[in-house]
Amino acid sequence: MQSFELDKTDLSKLRKAIEGDDQLLAETLAEYHASEIAILFENINSEDRQRIINLLEIEKASEVIAEMSEESHPEELLIQLHPDKRTEIVEELDYDDATDIISQLDEEEQQEILEDLSAQDAASIRNLLSYHEETAGGLMNSQMIKVNINLTKKDAIDEIIRQSEEIEEFYTVFVVDDEGCFKGIVSLKDIIKAKGNVKISDMVNADAVYVKADTDQEEVAKLLSQYNLTSIPVVDGHLKLLGRVTFDDVMDVMEDENTEDILKISGVSEDEELAGNWIDAVKSRLPWLIINLGTAFLASSVIRYFNETLDRLDVLSAYMTIIAGMGGNAATQALAVTVRRISLFDLTDKQAYRAVLKEFTVGMINGAATGLIVLVVAYFFDANLMLGLVIFLAMTGNLIVAGITGSAIPLMLKRIGIDPAIASSIIITTFTDVFGFFLLLGLASKLLL
Amino acid sequence: MQSFELDKTDLSKLRKAIEGDDQLLAETLAEYHASEIAILFENINSEDRQRIINLLEIEKASEVIAEMSEESHPEELLIQLHPDKRTEIVEELDYDDATDIISQLDEEEQQEILEDLSAQDAASIRNLLSYHEETAGGLMNSQMIKVNINLTKKDAIDEIIRQSEEIEEFYTVFVVDDEGCFKGIVSLKDIIKAKGNVKISDMVNADAVYVKADTDQEEVAKLLSQYNLTSIPVVDGHLKLLGRVTFDDVMDVMEDENTEDILKISGVSEDEELAGNWIDAVKSRLPWLIINLGTAFLASSVIRYFNETLDRLDVLSAYMTIIAGMGGNAATQALAVTVRRISLFDLTDKQAYRAVLKEFTVGMINGAATGLIVLVVAYFFDANLMLGLVIFLAMTGNLIVAGITGSAIPLMLKRIGIDPAIASSIIITTFTDVFGFFLLLGLASKLLL
Repeated sequence: MQSFELDKTDLSKLRKAIEGDDQLLAETLAEYHASEIAILFENINSEDRQRIINLLEIEKASEVIAEMSEESHPEELLIQLHPDKRTEIVEELDYDDATDIISQLDEEEQQEILEDLSAQDAASIRNLLSYHEETAGGLMNSQMIKVNINLTKKDAIDEIIRQSEEIEEFYTVFVVDDEGCFKGIVSLKDIIKAKGNVKISDMVNADAVYVKADTDQEEVAKLLSQYNLTSIPVVDGHLKLLGRVTFDDVMDVMEDENTEDILKISGVSEDEELAGNWIDAVKSRLPWLIINLGTAFLASSVIRYFNETLDRLDVLSAYMTIIAGMGGNAATQALAVTVRRISLFDLTDKQAYRAVLKEFTVGMINGAATGLIVLVVAYFFDANLMLGLVIFLAMTGNLIVAGITGSAIPLMLKRIGIDPAIASSIIITTFTDVFGFFLLLGLASKLLL
Repeated sequence: MQSFELDKTDLSKLRKAIEGDDQLLAETLAEYHASEIAILFENINSEDRQRIINLLEIEKASEVIAEMSEESHPEELLIQLHPDKRTEIVEELDYDDATDIISQLDEEEQQEILEDLSAQDAASIRNLLSYHEETAGGLMNSQMIKVNINLTKKDAIDEIIRQSEEIEEFYTVFVVDDEGCFKGIVSLKDIIKAKGNVKISDMVNADAVYVKADTDQEEVAKLLSQYNLTSIPVVDGHLKLLGRVTFDDVMDVMEDENTEDILKISGVSEDEELAGNWIDAVKSRLPWLIINLGTAFLASSVIRYFNETLDRLDVLSAYMTIIAGMGGNAATQALAVTVRRISLFDLTDKQAYRAVLKEFTVGMINGAATGLIVLVVAYFFDANLMLGLVIFLAMTGNLIVAGITGSAIPLMLKRIGIDPAIASSIIITTFTDVFGFFLLLGLASKLLL
């Protein structure tokens, strides 16, 4: 297959097929990969989605549903299907995918789906539903290849072939003892290369990384990425092997965490759906704007306080907005660098201290540089060197404060266990607004009047 | 091994060992994984790094260097080592890792390293150096398992075992024809399960995704993540198989792209090193602040233009900053959601149009809601209903403009092939500053004076 995403030609071809009869549609669908049909689903209505799912073979239909993004709401499609079809699809899904989808439904709908399943499948999914969505337990799949540590190469290969009937892809073979406790990993490559009478215990890598079921997903992603693993085993408190988290789940987690960071830092609630409707967007953003409004009143009260100064030197109004705007942007710069650094690395106290010191220096230099430009402008435009000097001092002071708050606030939040991205630009920029106004108008009232 | 990162106890244990003699240090280092020693390297000076590399066995030393983040500058460590040690380490590295590190050095240093290598290694690395760093060719590794499509199961396994001596990890077996052209993939699992006389051509999945060497890394990451692949084959213009990009490289790309997005959107140059010094930070941020200063002068000229209005109704100064600040924040919200959406999904024209329409609606509602709050405050504080009404209109208008610019500008940039994240909050917020001042002061001069 040529490598491609679903382009316009494909989309219009598929749309045309949807307008045609079932046979044409089925033939056209056969040309596309499940993940491409999942992309198509973002562009068609609910009836067409159902019709397509009903036309596909169970295996492909379940792949399409597994590949649908959370934002396309596969659970709504699933619950609308005929119960028999639905049951077949859920039984075909990997347990972790089925759990992710079913967890989005309300209690009653969950029951409706689970009671049609085989006792074993229902129990496995119920068990996975009990873990918090954002932990290793919530991410893991209980389908994996595991072999007893006492098997010989030959028996292990038979066992792997038997287990692999049930599992589509695997990358690592997990080793357990008679109690089912995790003992390490062995690669399929090493098993193949071994002589027939060699035992698994001779090949096992007992040094393998594992996580507990309640480990936070961000930690799981960091470990898997740090150690370049295709999958990481998940154990309970007694080291019993429960399942594995695979790299593809972790890639999704990384994208989700990154979306959360970029939204939070911009004052948008982390759970706003990117493709959601305007009602969701208003709900997610209005509260932040109202917080911003409250702090903006604070900034404006500084201006009211210096009303007389502004009255006597009305050109200050024009410079006020420059100082505040520059402070806000410099703070946002420091914030972005710091939040990103925290989310990629674990900083020691010394590194955190140095980061703030660096931002202090950067703020001072950038403040002095831009302050100098404004000083020159004030001198030529308003023929007032003293005014220029006041602006220079206010700019430098405000950008120093911007650098310190933009770095120290997220670092302190991280320290006390709060997500540093919550120190959104909204909070930080208002702080620099208040301080910038105070500095400019305060200095002006002392030095210029 | 218990799953952990390098915590304070480990760090101080390692520091103590560094102060001790070589034997103690070597023993202590033996307890740590290469990726953990790479983290230690972020916290110690250049001499200690060299001493540790010299103490480690070549295999582990090369792993440590491969695991060091770009920001810790493994290339500087490498160039400082004794030439013999350096050559041993480079020959132990995977070609793609060696290329990444060597590419950071200047021409002369690159030559110095390459001429000590075996002819084959030097040629492979020179070839990889010729691809642009941010393409499939720049990311790929030429070490992989490939088998001829005409082999039988038995011969294929012998061939895989032979090739796997050279390669540490593999997940997929690539299939080529007699000319070395890519013919598809086959999983090790399927080969093991097959009967002895079955040929590779009977098992090959010819539908496998591949990329050209000049494919952009972001596209490679999207495909690998979309199709849940552990590795993706890279071919030249004649479909000749050149190498593979593995999931761990793609995870690094994803983090880099996300860092770039969050920095650019916040007005920081994408190549600022998160842990860089203040000189780098000033160089990366000052240009953006100067652009911001230019646009801030534009906003302040609007204020100058309405100087008389402000003189006659000086309470407007206090409200001006509220309107501008709210507009900037609402624009940043719309920008963050839109930029993130663009980077995760490919939007059709219709979806782009709907996104702007949605932001228009969100701006109108959030503007009216917060405008109403300010109206009430203006009425009670300043006893001026007409002033309140002007503020209400200016707030609503400014947040509508914020929503439209925050979404339409990045979408248009994407359309004409420019990175949408460059529409940083600096540009967008100045736009809303200018518009907000104009709207408030213009309306006030017409309706209040």
